[in-house]
Amino acid sequence: MTQGLTFSVLARDGAARLGRLDTAHGAIRTPAFMPVGTAATVKAMPPEAVKATGADIILGNTYHLMLRPTAERVACLGGLHKFMNWPGPILTDSGGYQVMSLAKLRRIDETGVTFKSHLDGATVTLTPERSIEIQRLLGADITMAFDECTPFTATVETVAHSMRLSMRWARRSKAAFAPRAGAGLFGIVQGGIHPELRAESATALMDIGFDGYAVGGLAVGEGQELMLRTLDVTVPGLPVDRPRYLMGVGTPADLVGAVRRGIDMFDCVLPTRSGRTAQAFTRRGTVNMRNARHAEDPRPLDDACACPVCRGYSRAYLHHLTKADEMLGPMLLTQHNLTFFQDVMAGLRDAIARGALDHYAGQFLETLDLGDVPPLS
Amino acid sequence: MTQGLTFSVLARDGAARLGRLDTAHGAIRTPAFMPVGTAATVKAMPPEAVKATGADIILGNTYHLMLRPTAERVACLGGLHKFMNWPGPILTDSGGYQVMSLAKLRRIDETGVTFKSHLDGATVTLTPERSIEIQRLLGADITMAFDECTPFTATVETVAHSMRLSMRWARRSKAAFAPRAGAGLFGIVQGGIHPELRAESATALMDIGFDGYAVGGLAVGEGQELMLRTLDVTVPGLPVDRPRYLMGVGTPADLVGAVRRGIDMFDCVLPTRSGRTAQAFTRRGTVNMRNARHAEDPRPLDDACACPVCRGYSRAYLHHLTKADEMLGPMLLTQHNLTFFQDVMAGLRDAIARGALDHYAGQFLETLDLGDVPPLS
Repeated sequence: MTQGLTFSVLARDGAARLGRLDTAHGAIRTPAFMPVGTAATVKAMPPEAVKATGADIILGNTYHLMLRPTAERVACLGGLHKFMNWPGPILTDSGGYQVMSLAKLRRIDETGVTFKSHLDGATVTLTPERSIEIQRLLGADITMAFDECTPFTATVETVAHSMRLSMRWARRSKAAFAPRAGAGLFGIVQGGIHPELRAESATALMDIGFDGYAVGGLAVGEGQELMLRTLDVTVPGLPVDRPRYLMGVGTPADLVGAVRRGIDMFDCVLPTRSGRTAQAFTRRGTVNMRNARHAEDPRPLDDACACPVCRGYSRAYLHHLTKADEMLGPMLLTQHNLTFFQDVMAGLRDAIARGALDHYAGQFLETLDLGDVPPLS
Repeated sequence: MTQGLTFSVLARDGAARLGRLDTAHGAIRTPAFMPVGTAATVKAMPPEAVKATGADIILGNTYHLMLRPTAERVACLGGLHKFMNWPGPILTDSGGYQVMSLAKLRRIDETGVTFKSHLDGATVTLTPERSIEIQRLLGADITMAFDECTPFTATVETVAHSMRLSMRWARRSKAAFAPRAGAGLFGIVQGGIHPELRAESATALMDIGFDGYAVGGLAVGEGQELMLRTLDVTVPGLPVDRPRYLMGVGTPADLVGAVRRGIDMFDCVLPTRSGRTAQAFTRRGTVNMRNARHAEDPRPLDDACACPVCRGYSRAYLHHLTKADEMLGPMLLTQHNLTFFQDVMAGLRDAIARGALDHYAGQFLETLDLGDVPPLS
């Protein structure tokens, strides 16, 4: 296999790894959290502000971009990096997940998925070959194999059937992927919460050979305990010399739990979506900025946070912005939340480097359970 | 009168002046355009980005802030500068204009205006004394006298009656204003489009004595020609050693016309509001970024513009953001539009300094009439 991406494990602490993934558009410090840039923008954030939160890499959504502005148009305009003015690494998903969650009138067969666009109702077909082509047109540093996402409620037979289809699609994805310097293709382990199916899937993917291995089909309603238990049985079966990516995860506590189990990469809309619904993340848990108790509170959101939002604004002001429906509210809360998530990752990386992950994780989770600071008397 | 603000005229070109207005929070280069920060935020812009567009001073709205979060709350939190994290000068309006345009069930008498809040229907009374108190609580560098805004359609008798009420309120505003170092009070000339009423109003204000003189009651539907004609008869009657502020104006052509007639300060929602409705200002006039002709256009909005938006993004991308209803669209268009307006002011200041205003203004207006650049072939 052409080695498109270079992954170096720099330190270990238990199952956790400190690493570095080099791409054509720069290095990614792992464990890494990838902000989601669905429609060629991390919502409410200019790219230089995303970078300033500490993000090395962002995620783009194949499904959204193929429909608007279309992959061909992005390619004509110089690729996704140039289009959205993000010079760093980009991972694109395969479109499979959004086809399941957003599109209407889906029909799945061996070839791929045919669906109606949620934007204009147009009929579109997505196959492994087309998904890989779209991701190439976008100029992804990390391309994801096309897979089917199985609902959490599916029977074990359905999960097995779906996983095996995804493995055949993974082989077609690999065949369709043209290796390029500094770019790579990740396979996606499926199999729901069933250890034997996860093992079968991991083996099938390693037989094909990928630059990295993602764990898909989690964070779909199974809860943190089942998710971590599934990682316990899945991660040890993945190659030690390749990055491992847990898709669509998660809360700060999820990130800590998954890093301790050897996951290197994450993506989630939680910090950005929460920023648009007045939910702020702090070291003492989440805070609803709409709550009237913040109305006269001169303190920052999180006094341990060094982000421009916590240095420049009071809770009272952030509360005012949310009450007044001012766009600056989502902008500032997204900026803080993304910084918070990047700080969590930086803390985990530092703890792994020091061999102090258990201690760090214990303190972090304990503080997270404290609840928000009490009101000023 | 205690001299709270220092205004220096540095150069003249015809009636136009290049100046500098010093306040407790810094200097304002005039002619100046003030972005509008209605509810303690210039919509869709963090304050450091507002500063980076070239703005020296912003405007805050007494009406909005008195209702939410309230002037007392802002004062408790350290004043408007600290609350919104804008360290530069702030001018607050008196609330009179918004009471007329936004509030319901108004009752005006000699004392002041009683109205129902557009937010919660609460009954509120605004008098000259209360308006000045609110502006002091907010910590305004420039406080505006409380006035009544007369509709453009009013008869000359109504305009005269209203103007004389505003002049009595101006005297009460002056009496209520406590001079502070680096802060000042502006009077507002009323009188509609009637030269004799404008002259009477200006004389009344000068008799009271203010730190600056605003021209109010324009840009309310009279059109550019009548507006400029009214300036022609009003501005020469104002003191030469005080700043002159044309309220609520205007388009780039309005700014050029008014500066040539001796106006030093402006405010308008046009660049910010347009930024939220996909209207972009360029040296060749306005452009609607929703228009499909931009969909594949790799060029910047305005190739003569050095702002981060024009340096970092294509028209195609800005079009995509507006079509996808992404918050980054209003954010970037507002940033560009505010930069454009500040560039207009910087160009005018430079032209005055060089004694070349007529030539500059002629070229500027000619280019503005060209219309947008033709599509790429």
